Amino acid sequence: MSASCHCNKKRDEISKLDDSLLDANDPNHPANLICELCRLFYDNNWVTGTGGGISIRDVKGKNPNLVYIAPSGIQKEKLQPWEMFVVELPDEKLLRTPNDCPTELTKSYKYKPSACTPLFMSCYTMRDAGACIHTHSQNAVMCSLLWGDKVEFEISHIEQIKALPKLAVNEKTGKVEKVGSMQYFDKLVIPIIENTPHEEDLTDSLQEAIKNYPGTTAVLVRRHGIYVWGEDVWKAKVYNEALDYLLELAVKMKQSGIPTTTQSN
Amino acid sequence: MSASCHCNKKRDEISKLDDSLLDANDPNHPANLICELCRLFYDNNWVTGTGGGISIRDVKGKNPNLVYIAPSGIQKEKLQPWEMFVVELPDEKLLRTPNDCPTELTKSYKYKPSACTPLFMSCYTMRDAGACIHTHSQNAVMCSLLWGDKVEFEISHIEQIKALPKLAVNEKTGKVEKVGSMQYFDKLVIPIIENTPHEEDLTDSLQEAIKNYPGTTAVLVRRHGIYVWGEDVWKAKVYNEALDYLLELAVKMKQSGIPTTTQSN
Amino acid sequence: MSASCHCNKKRDEISKLDDSLLDANDPNHPANLICELCRLFYDNNWVTGTGGGISIRDVKGKNPNLVYIAPSGIQKEKLQPWEMFVVELPDEKLLRTPNDCPTELTKSYKYKPSACTPLFMSCYTMRDAGACIHTHSQNAVMCSLLWGDKVEFEISHIEQIKALPKLAVNEKTGKVEKVGSMQYFDKLVIPIIENTPHEEDLTDSLQEAIKNYPGTTAVLVRRHGIYVWGEDVWKAKVYNEALDYLLELAVKMKQSGIPTTTQSN
Amino acid sequence: MSASCHCNKKRDEISKLDDSLLDANDPNHPANLICELCRLFYDNNWVTGTGGGISIRDVKGKNPNLVYIAPSGIQKEKLQPWEMFVVELPDEKLLRTPNDCPTELTKSYKYKPSACTPLFMSCYTMRDAGACIHTHSQNAVMCSLLWGDKVEFEISHIEQIKALPKLAVNEKTGKVEKVGSMQYFDKLVIPIIENTPHEEDLTDSLQEAIKNYPGTTAVLVRRHGIYVWGEDVWKAKVYNEALDYLLELAVKMKQSGIPTTTQSN
Repeated sequence: MSASCHCNKKRDEISKLDDSLLDANDPNHPANLICELCRLFYDNNWVTGTGGGISIRDVKGKNPNLVYIAPSGIQKEKLQPWEMFVVELPDEKLLRTPNDCPTELTKSYKYKPSACTPLFMSCYTMRDAGACIHTHSQNAVMCSLLWGDKVEFEISHIEQIKALPKLAVNEKTGKVEKVGSMQYFDKLVIPIIENTPHEEDLTDSLQEAIKNYPGTTAVLVRRHGIYVWGEDVWKAKVYNEALDYLLELAVKMKQSGIPTTTQSN
Repeated sequence: MSASCHCNKKRDEISKLDDSLLDANDPNHPANLICELCRLFYDNNWVTGTGGGISIRDVKGKNPNLVYIAPSGIQKEKLQPWEMFVVELPDEKLLRTPNDCPTELTKSYKYKPSACTPLFMSCYTMRDAGACIHTHSQNAVMCSLLWGDKVEFEISHIEQIKALPKLAVNEKTGKVEKVGSMQYFDKLVIPIIENTPHEEDLTDSLQEAIKNYPGTTAVLVRRHGIYVWGEDVWKAKVYNEALDYLLELAVKMKQSGIPTTTQSN
Repeated sequence: MSASCHCNKKRDEISKLDDSLLDANDPNHPANLICELCRLFYDNNWVTGTGGGISIRDVKGKNPNLVYIAPSGIQKEKLQPWEMFVVELPDEKLLRTPNDCPTELTKSYKYKPSACTPLFMSCYTMRDAGACIHTHSQNAVMCSLLWGDKVEFEISHIEQIKALPKLAVNEKTGKVEKVGSMQYFDKLVIPIIENTPHEEDLTDSLQEAIKNYPGTTAVLVRRHGIYVWGEDVWKAKVYNEALDYLLELAVKMKQSGIPTTTQSN
Repeated sequence: MSASCHCNKKRDEISKLDDSLLDANDPNHPANLICELCRLFYDNNWVTGTGGGISIRDVKGKNPNLVYIAPSGIQKEKLQPWEMFVVELPDEKLLRTPNDCPTELTKSYKYKPSACTPLFMSCYTMRDAGACIHTHSQNAVMCSLLWGDKVEFEISHIEQIKALPKLAVNEKTGKVEKVGSMQYFDKLVIPIIENTPHEEDLTDSLQEAIKNYPGTTAVLVRRHGIYVWGEDVWKAKVYNEALDYLLELAVKMKQSGIPTTTQSN
């Protein structure tokens, strides 16, 4: 797929908004990055048909507690920066909604924040994440089906694993911290949780998985997709990309009868 | 695949046409959207080799009875706004044909409206659709072959199903209306009709399927492709995208021996 | 894959050439179309690693006997209009070689016409073709392997077949002419010839296949790829696209145990 | 995937650097080519998630001993020319590091040269290569798994093989030289070496493979990817492309039970 490009025109519209929580001129502003990444994800078939979502915490901005969230049910590849919701951590105070924008922009559409919002918030509060990505990747769905009787997806001895972080609990603070990168012979374990009819009802089992798997930076949702987070937006993007590569490879290995883990070193 | 871009040059040519049924400056005008979407569909291998088609009713324009139809047998990714046919509902009065354009544009080519026209019209009159998309998607063709002895394609318990509309007959008006979105555990049922030598001969069986399946927003045509419609062009695009995702996934599930429906909740 | 774009810069260089056989300002000039199509074919993995080739006869130009041929062994997605060879039919007189261009352009590289040249010429002389495309499409190679003990590839009852021409021998002239389009229930038969160590040695068997299969607009070459021709460049492009769609589908059908031909009507 | 494009803006930043080892205005400068090719490789899923690497020796520049190397752990599709390391052969003297660039550019990030550096150097010193490409291609990984008990990958009788070079030891100099192109019936043999936990530890076995296989222009690394080199950057690109085509085809052939080598001629 290939997202169309109206960027410049829309950027002008945003400049006119004079909104202190947006910055049309900074391509690395969270609201702009969400749009750039959604176009990329659409091209990868990860956010087809309004599926998936993304949220970025402004970890390098003046207020690192600001969280930008894409709205629910919008074509992701057409997302515009002014369509973002902004909340402030830790109490998730709503600072900005696209519904306050002029009706020339909203066309009277009533925006709702992504149904993934409580799941994104879990990653921010439990893991101090800087960004959280949710896709409907078919590789993720297929792995959750091919490992249909398992609660964990496992793979080891593939070079690409080294793009994932090695995480460990800091005994002093009790917090999960990045202590390096995974090694080639490390076993990558991603928990798989069961899907629920309503996305927000995934929150409890996602939180339980995050708690029970201090080494993971992602959770698979059976018949649904994957949640991936990272220290900042680029780390989250890289982790998601590396994981999708591994999930794609795992499907191919499974179909060829090649086990995804091995005892050898 | 990747469609080439001559947009700006051609847009100038259209400006000169002074045609009240076109508007080169409005990217959301039906004639322009048909071209944009055909390029996207081409990149997805859905309208390869002049296959497929699309029609948009101008539901948000001054005259919501105007229907724009792409011509027959043209390379879809190279389609230009001036090449559209325009008819007016309900009597399908022909208001515009590209054959009236100057020969510098037509090169004396004799345009014919898409052979899908009576099928598109069925969606407009029977379902009050705002747009109708027809593709030769290989996922659609493969599902029609893998479910070769069935007259319905079924899938359930996949998150992406939630992008499809829940439709129901309004008891007062007798019309099919959107009453919400499908749920995760709902079973999506798409009727499969048999192909005919001439596309227009599909009309009867398509109409019968539309009548017998009030809950569907699409019809599969065996060994041919799919017809998808929606309340407006973007809804039709999203439904088609979500359906193709599900058809692609269904092929993979079938090939891995995983049933596409399940009893569990 | 995705070809880079230096078009504008290079177009300037060509304007300076003052070469009556090129026209930098006409996007439909054969030399420019060859470059545009090679970028498209590269994006489709059809001309990977300098593979494949294309030739266009200037059927709508002042001299319809001029034939433009891409050079041998060049990265197809980077091809420039000035790199074309031009010969004149029927005696294939060489009118232009890129080796006459200034060394700023050629960098002293010694260009050779495509090894496909005698094969292209066979299509021009035996079928009065307007363009000829040769790709290393993996769908073509896989079909030639999956039908490894056959000298014909067959498929029927797939809608996309209708994009191919119905050809018949004109009893008066003895020439093969297009008499319409194939029907849905027609059986498409593409001859498969055996590959030879040197591409030019394919000429005899290609000519024999063209002679023995008056209904075909393409020849598969086992373990190699496909040759496709048409009345003009766009027809050749559409036929090649439709054929590749059918070859891709045929591989999937074969792998799922679904026969590609059927007796039913 | 589809890499974003900030080229022009960044090019301005580089112009200001006044760095004699960069040249923002020459698209064929090694530092610029590395960026162009990394975007292409990213679109091919070859350097996903910061994986893979590339190095170019400035064989046509004033000092053909200069070697440009992409940094380690950076998103390859976002690479900028100023981020290159430059070393001089034969003693690998470090002439340039991106860490010397202004902090507006580096954002205080501490760059490290690619972990592939000693492997790239082996290709330069042992084979007089002009460029070396390393990808995590899934076709390469899958072939290393499907040929899991073999130390060589073999394929023959496929036309695309002719894009690869025929190499032979020059008896006078003892050096490996290109003596032509492979023939259709030649057997392409690529050695497969076992992966190691640390990329630099591959150096010994890579060198051994280069020594033992004078006819190869590539080495597969099991569960990891492939190293490919060539006389200059474009040759390396073409060889890598042709090899990936053959590896992709080999996976399909293996899955269909078709042997990749044959006795016939």
